[in-house]
This record gives sequence, structure tokens and C-alpha cells, in this order.
Amino acid sequence: MAKVGVVLSGCGVYDGAEIHEAVLTLLALDRKGATVICMAPDIAQAHVINHQTGEESPAETRNVLVESARIARGDIRDIATVAAADLDALVFPGGFGAAKNLCDFAFKGPECSIEPGVQRLVKEMLAAHKPIVAVCIAPALLARVMGAEHVPVKLTIGTDPETGQAIEAMGGTHIQCPVSEFVVDEETKVISTPAYMLGRRISEVAAGIDKTIDELFRLLR
Amino acid sequence: MAKVGVVLSGCGVYDGAEIHEAVLTLLALDRKGATVICMAPDIAQAHVINHQTGEESPAETRNVLVESARIARGDIRDIATVAAADLDALVFPGGFGAAKNLCDFAFKGPECSIEPGVQRLVKEMLAAHKPIVAVCIAPALLARVMGAEHVPVKLTIGTDPETGQAIEAMGGTHIQCPVSEFVVDEETKVISTPAYMLGRRISEVAAGIDKTIDELFRLLR
Repeated sequence: MAKVGVVLSGCGVYDGAEIHEAVLTLLALDRKGATVICMAPDIAQAHVINHQTGEESPAETRNVLVESARIARGDIRDIATVAAADLDALVFPGGFGAAKNLCDFAFKGPECSIEPGVQRLVKEMLAAHKPIVAVCIAPALLARVMGAEHVPVKLTIGTDPETGQAIEAMGGTHIQCPVSEFVVDEETKVISTPAYMLGRRISEVAAGIDKTIDELFRLLR
Repeated sequence: MAKVGVVLSGCGVYDGAEIHEAVLTLLALDRKGATVICMAPDIAQAHVINHQTGEESPAETRNVLVESARIARGDIRDIATVAAADLDALVFPGGFGAAKNLCDFAFKGPECSIEPGVQRLVKEMLAAHKPIVAVCIAPALLARVMGAEHVPVKLTIGTDPETGQAIEAMGGTHIQCPVSEFVVDEETKVISTPAYMLGRRISEVAAGIDKTIDELFRLLR
């Protein structure tokens, strides 16, 4: 039974993990019989966005691990306590949290820094040659970690030219891809899919995530 | 194309809408081609629970509509502005929010009060003979609204004896039901399914919700 880590980044598309992508990932993994280990960094969110208005709530602070626990129904670990040896694969759902809390790509672009616990675990997974899945905007953080290590990788964030150029600026190769498909880099075992970078409907996003998790299990066989 | 209202009650199983149930409901409805109208009451949550520890955060307050907007990706309406005439059907996902924010069943049991906007819309749907789906603990609020109107209804919350007795105390008839099935009351067009009242795995809960939404669309034909 595969042990798959799912890295959450809060709870809500504008300041945390994209909730639909996270839940669809958990569903696809459970249908494969995977043992899922949800995790998140124990840090403050970059900010809190009121999801009804789209405005920042400057007086509020929330913790990424505590908010991620909402998606995990309480069953969650601090990413600082998880090692690649505990896992067969690692999955990053998207949402702005992946680009605001797991790294600061949303604010700094290609010059972004990666949260230290996330950076360590990604490097461990790559060194152990274990697969990593990145959904939606999450490929940006992989491009940054791998670019800094001079490891070439093919990734997709869909078709957005600006984000695609940022991926290339960090040393990745950006491949255009529709929402229902994925891009696999066989060498590094990195799989990516656009999800809500392109998707308009939850059923489209589900189709892409299901196919991506199928591909993960092909790599794990 | 059916217009289906989804009533959210916050964002997180312990103080709001159960996130998996809400997302799986949105997925099942989208796969049917439904136009989904997410809504929630514009009121303060009963309280805020830290989902990592399970403890209350007494210093925090959150708004049900604002937090529900996280699940709806911002596309949400105040339930006070929605009429039964706008909808072909109404769905209540579960989570403690359905029993703490949409009504106070979690605190007061069979003597509970219903949030006025929720109560009005449920009564309008019943009067218009339009179907209502209640997932997990949400059947408790329907039992209360319908019991007060002396409308008999068959409902399930799974197999929990105490909650089943409370349903009966409010005037409903409780039917035991496994997670993968649903109970339909043909007379009132009320459908219910246990979801995480019984489910241990997200794939089980998805199977029950998919079957329940299939049944909803049978009633809508």
C-alpha cells in the first residue's frame, strides 16, 4: 500500500490550498488504496483573504498547519517532522497558498524563496528518486528548488505565458498542457497538471487530477 | 439545466461545512450538468474550532458566509436573498456547521431553533414540492423544520442511536442506512445519506453522495 504525502498550504484558494484540488487529490489517492499523510508547515499564512470580497483582512492572522487541518479533518502533521523515508510519493495541490505560504513566488516571482521544511522534503524526495506531483501553481516551487540544484525538469502550469516564462527563468522547461492532461518528466519522476490554472468546472479539474494520480501509480509500480 | 442550491455552513468539519462532503456534492452536481448556486447565512459562526487540536479558539470569531466562500471559490450568495423560485432543488452538505450555524441542534438537541433564512427557504421548497437533499447531520434540521409543521418525513443519519432518537423526538421517522446508500421520502421529495456520520474513507462518502445526487436527478426528471 503506497504511502503518499499531501502538502497543504492553508484552506482556501486565495490564501491557502485550493480546496477542490486538495479534496479531489485525497479522493483519487483513496480510490487507489493509498495511505495518505497530510502535512503542512507550522508557520503564519502570508495573509488572510476574505473569500467573499477578495479583499485582504489585514487585522487577521492564521496558521498554515491549523487551517490545513480543516481539509485533513484534523489528521495532519507538521512537514518539519516528515522525512522522504516515510513516503513513497509526495503531492502538492495548488491554490495561492502554494505560491504564498510554501514559497513566496506570488510576491517575488522567479527570485522566490522556499519554506525550509518544504525545500528539505522536496530535495530528499528527489535524492531518493521518489515521484512528486504538483498541481495548478505548485510546479513553480518545484521549478525553483530544482533550478537552484541545476536539475532540468519539464513542468506545466497550463498555458499562462507569464507564469510559463517564470518557470523557464527558474531553470525549468515549460510544456503547454490542457486541464484534462498532465506532463510527466520521466527522468526526475515529476508529474504536473494545470487544474484550476485552466479549469472552469470542478468536473474538468477532477478529470485532470484523476489522470495525474493514475500516472503517479504507473510510476510507483 | 437544473439549478441546484448548495447551503454551506462555514468551512471545516468541526465548526462549519464538512469540506469533503461539500466538494463531493459540487462535483456530483457538476457532472450532472447542474447550475450550482452556493449560499450561506450572513451570521457569526457559533464558535471557531482549531482543527489541529480540536479545541475551541475563544478569542476568534468568523462569519459563516465569508468562510463558506472558501469552498465556493468566492461565488456565493447570502441565503436571505435566495427564493425557492430561483431553484429546482436544494442540497445541505453536513459538518457540525449544519448543527451549530444553520441551527443549534448540536447544543440544544430536539428543542433546537433554525436560522431564519434557512427555515424560510426550506419551507418554500417544501411548499413548492421541490426536492431537498440532506447529507450527514443535516437531516436533523429538516426533521426540526418539518416536525414543527407536522409534515411526516423519513430520514437517515446512519446508525447512531442517540441522533436517530432525536430525529424521532422532532417528529421524523429515522431509517438506518449504510454510508453507500440513501433514504428517499417520495412524498416530500427529501433524500438523505449518512456520509461521514458513518464513513471512514472519502471514497465511501463519495459513493454515497454520488448515488444520492443520482436519486435527486431521478426525482427532477
